[in-house]
Amino acid sequence: MTEEKIKKEKTSIETVRHSLSHVLAAAVLEMFPEAKLGIGPNIENGFYYDFDLPRNLVPEDLKVLQEKMKAIIMGDYIFEKREEPKKEAIAYLKKIDQNYKIELAEELETDKIGFYDIKDVKSGKIIFTDMCAGPHVESTRELRSVGLKLEKNASAYWRGSEKNKMLQRIYGLAFETRDELKDYENMMIEAAKRDHRKLGKELDLFVFSDLVGPGLPLFTPKGTVIKEELQKKVEGICRKYGFQKVMTPHLTKIDLYKISGHADKFGDELFRVSSIHNQDYVMKPVQCPHQTQIYASRPRSYRDLPIRYMESEKQYRAERPGEIGGLNRVIAITCEDGHTFCRVDQIKEEARRMVEIIKDFYTEIGMWENAKVSLSVRDYAHPEKYIGEPADWDLCEQMLQDISDEMGLKAVKNEGEAALYGPKLDFMFKDAMGRDVQIPTVQLDFATPKRFGLTYIDENGAQVPPVMVHRAILGSYERFMALLIEHFAGAFPLWLAPVQVKILPIADRHFDYAKKVYDTLFDAEVRVELDDRTESVGKKIREAEMQKIPFMLVIGDKEVEAGMVALRKYKEGDLGQFEVKEIIDQIKKK
Amino acid sequence: MTEEKIKKEKTSIETVRHSLSHVLAAAVLEMFPEAKLGIGPNIENGFYYDFDLPRNLVPEDLKVLQEKMKAIIMGDYIFEKREEPKKEAIAYLKKIDQNYKIELAEELETDKIGFYDIKDVKSGKIIFTDMCAGPHVESTRELRSVGLKLEKNASAYWRGSEKNKMLQRIYGLAFETRDELKDYENMMIEAAKRDHRKLGKELDLFVFSDLVGPGLPLFTPKGTVIKEELQKKVEGICRKYGFQKVMTPHLTKIDLYKISGHADKFGDELFRVSSIHNQDYVMKPVQCPHQTQIYASRPRSYRDLPIRYMESEKQYRAERPGEIGGLNRVIAITCEDGHTFCRVDQIKEEARRMVEIIKDFYTEIGMWENAKVSLSVRDYAHPEKYIGEPADWDLCEQMLQDISDEMGLKAVKNEGEAALYGPKLDFMFKDAMGRDVQIPTVQLDFATPKRFGLTYIDENGAQVPPVMVHRAILGSYERFMALLIEHFAGAFPLWLAPVQVKILPIADRHFDYAKKVYDTLFDAEVRVELDDRTESVGKKIREAEMQKIPFMLVIGDKEVEAGMVALRKYKEGDLGQFEVKEIIDQIKKK
Repeated sequence: MTEEKIKKEKTSIETVRHSLSHVLAAAVLEMFPEAKLGIGPNIENGFYYDFDLPRNLVPEDLKVLQEKMKAIIMGDYIFEKREEPKKEAIAYLKKIDQNYKIELAEELETDKIGFYDIKDVKSGKIIFTDMCAGPHVESTRELRSVGLKLEKNASAYWRGSEKNKMLQRIYGLAFETRDELKDYENMMIEAAKRDHRKLGKELDLFVFSDLVGPGLPLFTPKGTVIKEELQKKVEGICRKYGFQKVMTPHLTKIDLYKISGHADKFGDELFRVSSIHNQDYVMKPVQCPHQTQIYASRPRSYRDLPIRYMESEKQYRAERPGEIGGLNRVIAITCEDGHTFCRVDQIKEEARRMVEIIKDFYTEIGMWENAKVSLSVRDYAHPEKYIGEPADWDLCEQMLQDISDEMGLKAVKNEGEAALYGPKLDFMFKDAMGRDVQIPTVQLDFATPKRFGLTYIDENGAQVPPVMVHRAILGSYERFMALLIEHFAGAFPLWLAPVQVKILPIADRHFDYAKKVYDTLFDAEVRVELDDRTESVGKKIREAEMQKIPFMLVIGDKEVEAGMVALRKYKEGDLGQFEVKEIIDQIKKK
Repeated sequence: MTEEKIKKEKTSIETVRHSLSHVLAAAVLEMFPEAKLGIGPNIENGFYYDFDLPRNLVPEDLKVLQEKMKAIIMGDYIFEKREEPKKEAIAYLKKIDQNYKIELAEELETDKIGFYDIKDVKSGKIIFTDMCAGPHVESTRELRSVGLKLEKNASAYWRGSEKNKMLQRIYGLAFETRDELKDYENMMIEAAKRDHRKLGKELDLFVFSDLVGPGLPLFTPKGTVIKEELQKKVEGICRKYGFQKVMTPHLTKIDLYKISGHADKFGDELFRVSSIHNQDYVMKPVQCPHQTQIYASRPRSYRDLPIRYMESEKQYRAERPGEIGGLNRVIAITCEDGHTFCRVDQIKEEARRMVEIIKDFYTEIGMWENAKVSLSVRDYAHPEKYIGEPADWDLCEQMLQDISDEMGLKAVKNEGEAALYGPKLDFMFKDAMGRDVQIPTVQLDFATPKRFGLTYIDENGAQVPPVMVHRAILGSYERFMALLIEHFAGAFPLWLAPVQVKILPIADRHFDYAKKVYDTLFDAEVRVELDDRTESVGKKIREAEMQKIPFMLVIGDKEVEAGMVALRKYKEGDLGQFEVKEIIDQIKKK
């Protein structure tokens, strides 16, 4: 598909959606002739329209309205544009008593105001008129093959202000075809099933407490296992590439961020901290400034570089209460962060190592295959917008391009997308539901070392600032866990599963043997639970399946006699008898 | 030695020290007849005396004064007590122009005021008089065998107030014998060598930054290794005893601590946190309240208990700036903390497990052998001072006593030392310098679960509060690291050593082979460094010894040829040739 074609099609579905919002308004006016119209813009996957109605809508109303819309679509109407001088336009709107439209019209600074009429082709009768600049489809015939559904209704203040009247908003989904609508609806059903807030509760991974506050998740033992395993994985990979762990506090004098520039950047998002002894302290919203202070703590020579620090620690950002939700938007963000301090001639190797880390990690997670990479370079027309020497920029952009070429990343160049202080590589993946995941990044930074006056002694004895290379791999553990919970629908791979094995004795007489099996697995550091309730094994299996536990070991007379266990895998069912040692080997191999 | 004897001797050395402070004052008056006397109390290991002098003291003055003191001691003087009516006493002090003593005398609410004269036995001449209540030795002859040293001088405000005049303070060390003084001085020299602040800098373990603030250590890669290894060790042991890791934020609404009682308890030590969205937040000064909220997040049954949580996380307490120093007193305290929620019938087993954990951990550190244990029980005369039922207290105190008996702890009972909310076991050890280390504790808590309304459903379906058992093992990582640095004088055992192996190629032609050895060790997860500078191997060895690195692998022609390495152990010297694999095995075994 050519770029142009894609563009045209995108315009087209947007035009369809916008036209449908007018059809919806026409249907609403047919049902409630006294309705006042607000606005009806397009949104992702569809559109909405706000109305001032004589009564609150009930769900059944949406079905009626959708039928009315279909009737209009199946008729033969055209969308006809006309323009009126502003004065006449307002007079007309007053005549039809549309006060919200009058308000909007009065604010327009044009001489003429556009209207669209929906007109019956046969009779020439206008069934609906809206003040609008378009564009629309030419005929309702074009809407006949569309996948349309009135999704839900909600309340919304006129123009988003609490001071105004509350209107009723109707949301519509609209796709080019009915199949696309169906796909979208199925995806939403699947997403609801996989919602990490729902699964987090069912699988007992994390909780919130009113006494602690919103956006401050408490991780249960099971949730903590996932975080710890992720951390072990990412730290293990980073260690191979020469990263060393450091530990810094969550608190600092604000002076640190005045120098780094984060005091300005984060502003009201900073948590202020004080006591009778300490004023002007803040909680850290990022890790890098603290790490510069370890670098700065002693003289460094060109021979000491590169120095690579990593840290998985909490950062705190004062998010708006309305934006906090689940693990995707939290106040306490556990961030995996790392930086290299290096010489200019080491940048390429350092950036390459970081890309290798990202590749290794996302390969393990099973997402690397469909990775898309972008290379953000500077806006060549405006070199004055950036920190650093043009020659260094040229060099570094070329290095990142070389890495992309040598590693076959096929990075797409984005001009003008570089950060103020250096170019970067960004990585995008798809989760199991086809949603975009954009987390990892490798970013060059000429500015921070200079701000902090960091230096090393070069071969000639001169004090030279190092370059920093930042990298994010999994970003915040909270968001990454939300992503993984939904990606795996809670059925984690063995290495991540909070409980890897559940032992299910069939009857009470099997408890002793089951306990021995439990002890053997526990001592082998397998994450194991024993269900020693007096319940039917059917119930025990059902509940273990609900908990999406990878391995279930059923123990009955035959197993006790043979000194074995019957293995049942999640979603695979019964796999026959095994020795406990074989089970441990299988788990350790993964 | 009987308890009484110890007591008598203690009184005696105190009397000696106090008498010596008068001898010092006599010597000062001999040297500076115009000197005004402040006060001269005993302190640990000696005494001091404050003087208002015509000039600042120089170090040589202390030698002169010590000689003068010795002359008095070697003479034949007695300490003679007399009492004067207050009026006459003040008149006398005015006559001898001792303004500070006058100030003190005027504040006394007694009718009579005591004086001590130091009088020459032969001539009857009084060489010195001080206002003092005693007691003193009878004769300076008693001071002849004493170990005495004027240690240092310093400045001190009269009566500790900045508003008063600055006086000069002379510190004296005094022990019963010269050998004891020698031992003490040797200990102090050793302590100075082992000072964790000094070694922390030399071994590059932690740093402070003016931009971050005092009391907020930043751990370098090497310091972080020690923290991580300690954490692995303690978590590994705790896991065996059924503890599960959780993760909670450093921030909370203050509501949590209003309920737990910590808002009152910590008061000004709490760091207050705010943003434009969040008010009345604080940083956590302890872990337990957060952990109660995980317990509280779902219904618990008697079958679910015990539930055991552990967490190694930072807590924040606003210490007075003057009290912050090194790692012993920090604002950011990384605390290893754990709690069990259990039924009353499970308390003994839970407390026993915690004692086992403490025993296992301190055995590994090599400190368990001389453990002393105390059992703090309630004040039986005042049962009203405690929370909880007397029957529960009786039961729990007996359980802790039983644990002591069964495990041979020989716990010493301390009546009235229990916490408000439950009895406890405390553990004390000695470090390599003979100093007391009192960190671990096992503490029963009837109160916290009730404050938070925690419950479980018992066998009869009733809602019952669980009991909490708190335990500290190593306490705060910062203080424990300070302790270990000084205990090991920086020469950490292999499992804790930040760098386990340093590879020392003799000449540049050995670098390639050395790099191969490095890679083999690095891949085997040994903490290894390669000294590939063009320096003499003697210098390389000296520097590695200074860094107290346990294993040095020297590589020369012979080693390259044989495909071996020459092992040199810290403080042990050359141990001959080994294969790299043997080195790895030795390290892994430890």
